[in-house]
Formats: sequence, structure tokens, C-alpha cells
Amino acid sequence: MHIVQPGSEFDVLRENNKIAHENYRDMKAHGIRSVDFMGSIGAGKTALIIEIAKRLRAKGVRVCAIAGDVTGVDDYRRFEESGLDAFNCNTGHECHLDANLVRKSLSEIDLDAYDAVLVENVGNLVCPADFPLGTDYRVVVVSTTEGDDMVRKHHDIFLHSDIAILNKMDIADAVGVDPEVILGDYRKLTGGLKEMYTCSVRTGDGIDKIIEALGF
Amino acid sequence: MHIVQPGSEFDVLRENNKIAHENYRDMKAHGIRSVDFMGSIGAGKTALIIEIAKRLRAKGVRVCAIAGDVTGVDDYRRFEESGLDAFNCNTGHECHLDANLVRKSLSEIDLDAYDAVLVENVGNLVCPADFPLGTDYRVVVVSTTEGDDMVRKHHDIFLHSDIAILNKMDIADAVGVDPEVILGDYRKLTGGLKEMYTCSVRTGDGIDKIIEALGF
Repeated sequence: MHIVQPGSEFDVLRENNKIAHENYRDMKAHGIRSVDFMGSIGAGKTALIIEIAKRLRAKGVRVCAIAGDVTGVDDYRRFEESGLDAFNCNTGHECHLDANLVRKSLSEIDLDAYDAVLVENVGNLVCPADFPLGTDYRVVVVSTTEGDDMVRKHHDIFLHSDIAILNKMDIADAVGVDPEVILGDYRKLTGGLKEMYTCSVRTGDGIDKIIEALGF
Repeated sequence: MHIVQPGSEFDVLRENNKIAHENYRDMKAHGIRSVDFMGSIGAGKTALIIEIAKRLRAKGVRVCAIAGDVTGVDDYRRFEESGLDAFNCNTGHECHLDANLVRKSLSEIDLDAYDAVLVENVGNLVCPADFPLGTDYRVVVVSTTEGDDMVRKHHDIFLHSDIAILNKMDIADAVGVDPEVILGDYRKLTGGLKEMYTCSVRTGDGIDKIIEALGF
């Protein structure tokens, strides 16, 4: 929900950015690399983070996740069941994480015990765009099941993120979506300056390239 | 994006509800039945509205659609190409339609020329919950591809809507989701007082029952 009163939006975003910088500095001081995974419901953020974390652990990277949701512990439990240390972060009503919520989560985490923090934002392709959390990378995850018009409809989040990921490539045909349309729109929007990576969490295709793009 | 300043949220929501009542009264004065379709990206709202409108037209119901999106004309064009009179309603940046945006759209529509107005809200399962538009029915559409935890994660929108629709039943198996979990969560949340209808826009299964539930 987007509530704008004269003057208030700017203040809220400025305050968020200030706290985001603190988060960034704190994580850097502990040698932590961090990623904010944004994207709609069903894009596959949870499964992608689980798969990335699994491969990072195999490389010896000590990783934990912050599970952002409006309510509930579903993603948190999925993380824990996969063997990934997780911290639950409910917004209560809000449609996105903000830097202050992440700050509270970070205060619960022993930052010396980890090399990487993977943050799963609330399932929403609109609102998280405006709220940097202080991570090294902001990633937007979309899936082929969302249709081929995602980039055309949601400029902001693609422009505000560092890289994009197109997931569920294995069922693109089954849902009648041509990935080339999405990739083409992304190239057009970003002028070819940023890359959209394709993957399928289910088959494992493309995951290693994403890990590399995130600097691990 | 959800910006809350002390006092402002209540004022904004109260103002929205006031305008929603005006929308409702205006549409009623012209004998119009209206429905607000909310749901995440990729839930299939556009295709569902096209299919419902097609069947309504076959029954002699004069129907038009309001295509709500952050930006672009994709859904508007899909409506028009399907033979459905449509009106584009871009929010610019906002993550949901509000009563005032719909009021502006209604002012462009010859209300005497239609019996039904179908509104497609912005693809978002969080924010639209708080903003009634003044329609007879508020419907939330989810799809099996979104996972089985939708109801558990998004209480608000399921509680604030009149009925729910579970779409893409035809690929539930392929995406490994058990619809009974979602239906069970919905029954639990609503105490069995409201119904979640299952359908597949692609096969056409379940659409007539939904049309009936909407009072057409």
C-alpha cells in the first residue's frame, strides 16, 4: 500500500536510505557479501535462494538467509528444512522489507559467523523497488509463468536492481511464453548495460552463472 | 510502496472509501454490476476477465473492462484484441488502483452503454487489499503456480475480498502444487463463510460457476 502525503514520501525514502547505508557498512565491516532478492509471488525466490545457498555451502561459504514476508513462517521453515540458517522477518502489514526491518534482523545475527546474507524480500514486483536494504546486490527474479510482459509493466524494479533473473525456463513452453521477448524488453530498458540471467531452479540450469555474477 | 506517517494512513483510507461509495452509487444508478479482480502478477487476471466477458457477451450482457497497471497498455490491448471494450488506467508509480483513479476512468465511460464493468487491479497480492474501489464484488485471483502458501502468507486480501478464485488448475500437477492445501487454508481463514472457486481459464473449466457466483 502506497500512502503519500506531501513531503512524507521523500522523508521516508531518505530515512530508509540512511539506514540502508548503516546496514551496508555493518555487513562490510564483518566481511559479509549480501544480496536482496526481489520479485513477485511464485517467481521462485525461496527455491532459488535455497539452491544458491546449497552451492555456496559446498564452496565453503558460510551463508544465512533473512526470510521477509508479510506474515507467517513458510519461507523461514523452507530455509531451515534445507539446512540453511534463517531469520524470519515479518512486516506485519507492509508490502516490502525496508532497511529498518533488515537492521533489526541483522541485530539478531552473529555477523562474524557468516560470509553471506541472502535476503528474500516480500513477494511483490512493485513496492520493494523504492527501498534499498543496504545489500551489495539487488536482484529481481521473475518467472516465465508470469507472462512475457513483466519488464514492460514494471520498469522501476528492473531499473533499480543490479541484475535480473528469469526463472522456470523449463516450463516456458508449457505456459506458452517466449523468453526472448522478456530478454529483449530487458535489453531495451537497460540499454544492454545490465544482464538478465536465465535459469531453472528445478533442473539446476543457469544457477552457477548467477552465483558467479553475484561475485561469489 | 507503503508510506505511513502518523495520522495519514487513516485519512487516506477514509478518503478512498468515500470516493469508493460515490463510484458504487454512480454505477448502481446506471444499473451496472461491477467486479474488482485483484491478484498477483501471473495469476491470470487478464485472461480470466477476457473469458468471463466473452461468456457474458454471449448472454447479451454489455460489458467493458478497466485495465489497471503501473505503466503500459499490455492488458488494455489484450482486452481490445479480444473484442472487449477497455479503458486503460495507469497508476504511474502506485502499486494498486484506488477509488479516485477508478472514478476518473468511470468519467470516460458512457455508463448507459454497459451493464457490467470488470476492473483489473495492478498485479499485487498485498496493497490492493486496503483500497476498495466501489465495486459490487472484490475478487482475489491466485494460481497454482504461485505455490501452496498464498493464503497463509496473505491473510488481508483474502479477508477483504468477497470470493477467491484458484486458477491454472490444469497445471497444478506439473508445478507440484496440491490445490487441496490452498482450499483448506482458505476454509480455515474464512471459517467456511466464503468460497474459493477453482478454474482453468485455458481449459474453460469452472468459469461458468464463477460467473454465477458474481450474480450474472
